[in-house]
Amino acid sequence: MSSRRFITQGEGLPQWSSPISHAVVVGNTCHISGQLSVDISGKYIAGTAYEEADRAFTNFLAVVKAAGFSKDDVVFVDIAFINLADVDGVNVLFAELFAEGKRPARTIYQASALPFGGKIKVTGVAIKDNTSDSPKQSVE
Amino acid sequence: MSSRRFITQGEGLPQWSSPISHAVVVGNTCHISGQLSVDISGKYIAGTAYEEADRAFTNFLAVVKAAGFSKDDVVFVDIAFINLADVDGVNVLFAELFAEGKRPARTIYQASALPFGGKIKVTGVAIKDNTSDSPKQSVE
Amino acid sequence: MSSRRFITQGEGLPQWSSPISHAVVVGNTCHISGQLSVDISGKYIAGTAYEEADRAFTNFLAVVKAAGFSKDDVVFVDIAFINLADVDGVNVLFAELFAEGKRPARTIYQASALPFGGKIKVTGVAIKDNTSDSPKQSVE
Repeated sequence: MSSRRFITQGEGLPQWSSPISHAVVVGNTCHISGQLSVDISGKYIAGTAYEEADRAFTNFLAVVKAAGFSKDDVVFVDIAFINLADVDGVNVLFAELFAEGKRPARTIYQASALPFGGKIKVTGVAIKDNTSDSPKQSVE
Repeated sequence: MSSRRFITQGEGLPQWSSPISHAVVVGNTCHISGQLSVDISGKYIAGTAYEEADRAFTNFLAVVKAAGFSKDDVVFVDIAFINLADVDGVNVLFAELFAEGKRPARTIYQASALPFGGKIKVTGVAIKDNTSDSPKQSVE
Repeated sequence: MSSRRFITQGEGLPQWSSPISHAVVVGNTCHISGQLSVDISGKYIAGTAYEEADRAFTNFLAVVKAAGFSKDDVVFVDIAFINLADVDGVNVLFAELFAEGKRPARTIYQASALPFGGKIKVTGVAIKDNTSDSPKQSVE
């Protein structure tokens, strides 16, 4: 039986017209598609960078959850900005979302344009710690 | 014996002057270098965004295959555009390449410039499902 | 016991004000945050693209080492440029850092802006080959 799963729908996941999965899970690893400030119908919601980041992260974490992962499993976050000066506000949000000492690695940069004319795009990777079902334990 | 493999040549792989591998495989995971609209000699072939994407994906999938992976193993694709409006044509291509319900996660954005002055760059990750040689089965 | 580790300090690691980890390790995989031309105090050091790349890679490899990984474990490197024409110099550096036949996969692109107004950002992934403690061996 395959452990591969394609996440295309779930609670809180925006509808998409693009021919992609929201996330793909293989084993203990989950790759998440770029998430934007869109509502549940997939409609772009313009806002301040902070508002757009808040909505994009809400969508990102909804995908993580729908894939069977939790916020604590997120190891890497890639944030594209249209104006990198917006990072200060996003840092406040990031610090609230991820507890000190358990924060993901991250990369940020300024893009020339993002889908829908959005200000922020969030993508990333989550990995479960499979120590509890590691080889050594599973054979005892 | 190491399971690490550096993919530098193979059927359909463009020649490169850059000091990099086309892909690196460790265990069941393959990371693929950014692929462009270049021919087998590594020469850039200018075209419409659709044509460049078609060629970049052909190269991308040639690397995936040379690494011992298949299209179905691709979990994540990162596409950089010079003009994000070209995404509609690329979506048509993407939908043809990857069957519904088995599509990778994806992120897209507009860059300021790409190598060779190209219009499209494709990179990504492939992961094999190693359930068939999972711990539980291997000890039985 | 969890195998998850958040790398926030270590020898040669720049201090950061951002609410992120320098790297996160789960099992044999390490995701590294975007590294820039900053000194140990986190202060941006402007230089030529080559100088900035040299410093960014020094920081990148310090993080890799602090995470318990080595340069040979790096499978993928993502380099953002402010001027993609700087790639020639960076290729010289890259070829020195990574021995022929053991080079990472790589993707490069030109961004509109990078943190601190820097010219180069380096991020990537390292994976250890865990063949030596693979399931088959661990049960014998």
